[in-house]
Amino acid sequence: MFTHETSIRVRYAETDQMGVVYHGHYFPYLESGRVEAIRSLGMSYAELEKMGISMPVVEVHCKYLRPARYDDLLRVRTSLPELRSDHRIEFHQEIYRGADELLMKAQVKLYFWDTQHHQKTTMPSALMDRLKSFYLD
Amino acid sequence: MFTHETSIRVRYAETDQMGVVYHGHYFPYLESGRVEAIRSLGMSYAELEKMGISMPVVEVHCKYLRPARYDDLLRVRTSLPELRSDHRIEFHQEIYRGADELLMKAQVKLYFWDTQHHQKTTMPSALMDRLKSFYLD
Amino acid sequence: MFTHETSIRVRYAETDQMGVVYHGHYFPYLESGRVEAIRSLGMSYAELEKMGISMPVVEVHCKYLRPARYDDLLRVRTSLPELRSDHRIEFHQEIYRGADELLMKAQVKLYFWDTQHHQKTTMPSALMDRLKSFYLD
Amino acid sequence: MFTHETSIRVRYAETDQMGVVYHGHYFPYLESGRVEAIRSLGMSYAELEKMGISMPVVEVHCKYLRPARYDDLLRVRTSLPELRSDHRIEFHQEIYRGADELLMKAQVKLYFWDTQHHQKTTMPSALMDRLKSFYLD
Repeated sequence: MFTHETSIRVRYAETDQMGVVYHGHYFPYLESGRVEAIRSLGMSYAELEKMGISMPVVEVHCKYLRPARYDDLLRVRTSLPELRSDHRIEFHQEIYRGADELLMKAQVKLYFWDTQHHQKTTMPSALMDRLKSFYLD
Repeated sequence: MFTHETSIRVRYAETDQMGVVYHGHYFPYLESGRVEAIRSLGMSYAELEKMGISMPVVEVHCKYLRPARYDDLLRVRTSLPELRSDHRIEFHQEIYRGADELLMKAQVKLYFWDTQHHQKTTMPSALMDRLKSFYLD
Repeated sequence: MFTHETSIRVRYAETDQMGVVYHGHYFPYLESGRVEAIRSLGMSYAELEKMGISMPVVEVHCKYLRPARYDDLLRVRTSLPELRSDHRIEFHQEIYRGADELLMKAQVKLYFWDTQHHQKTTMPSALMDRLKSFYLD
Repeated sequence: MFTHETSIRVRYAETDQMGVVYHGHYFPYLESGRVEAIRSLGMSYAELEKMGISMPVVEVHCKYLRPARYDDLLRVRTSLPELRSDHRIEFHQEIYRGADELLMKAQVKLYFWDTQHHQKTTMPSALMDRLKSFYLD
């Protein structure tokens, strides 16, 4: 299974008056996790968009277990449990502080979208080829 | 069942380069929906915080059906399907454009948190008293 | 001089752990002030964009005098001191809490930008015509 | 003169439908620039807050010269032209793309604020001592 990890520093702008990260501000962290996971494969999401593929988020399910705080150095772990052949892709993501303090778990479902023809499409082969080796038996 | 509706205008700041509202920017809309629902009962979330009660979000589950766009006037419908007696409260929320175009559905679970004693608590009676009449048989 | 005022409620998402509105979160308030000022003239910024005119911000100068707080109902006052005939437009904006507590002052300079030809342009006549009456001697 | 540089990757969340970074989203970049500049001296802004000092922004003056775009790797250069002995500190900051493409210039003025006594204070000596060597003749 393809798994990747990236680090993110919490900004002051992302805290709220409870003294913790606002629940809506985790979504850019999760986005960075997915983007850096794709980059680690030798592509970039920016390139996908230039190829006419965008990836809108269609569903999120998140559990907030412990609050992230200002200046925390977070680890965002991004996994792709399954390699699908249709228009959907679902990432499982976890955010940790330090070695093993789990702060948040998320499932994020996206579509592959053909921006020129305004319709669903499937994962571009350039990305599929890079991912396949992680799922061979 | 207690249900309330509030209107929100989409800001330019909330769009992204797909030309739609970024998925993470719906969370402040949902927050406003809950806050205005409480205000409609004659209290305010700000007052709850002054009483030593905060309400951290512990779980969200959202489906994005159609994109909201810049300058859209959205309707956020906020319902409380169940009046619980423990430390949890779960809102069901829907965002519409115009009369009946459903854009997004969300379930948002929060805890009642005693900020002085740093522990879970239950819904303050001032709020419970205002809600009870919506759930009498 | 054309002046317009609009109201904005501070969201929890916009506070930071100092317990006040984060300085960067005033910019969407100022944006709403300008957008509602234009709407009050019978046009909308969304329509301007559909006509091929966008208005990028090129300079801001802001003084933060007193902090805005969660749930404050702010008044954003937007003025246009001068009606220019070139590609620039500069708004003077002030944010108040209650009747007369001034929280922030801003000067925001924008360009009129022709999105099709990728070059500066001037204020569209539809907007100019609506503004002229405020500047006649 | 003390100068420091840090890198920031533009997130999708920070773009708007003009296809560029929204003008208000540069403020967290500038914040990170200042925070990493202080960290490079062997302190952290988080530590300052624990010592009872916060640093509210009281004035910003920014010129946007060229737009930053999604996935750009930006360089934020942060300088402190002058070491003052009063309650004020003013940073000069510039944001570049690549080696020398200047996108934005900012002057950001902050106060040193004693959070316990709710009054202005001066730069803590721990920070002053670290900075002095950059300003010796």
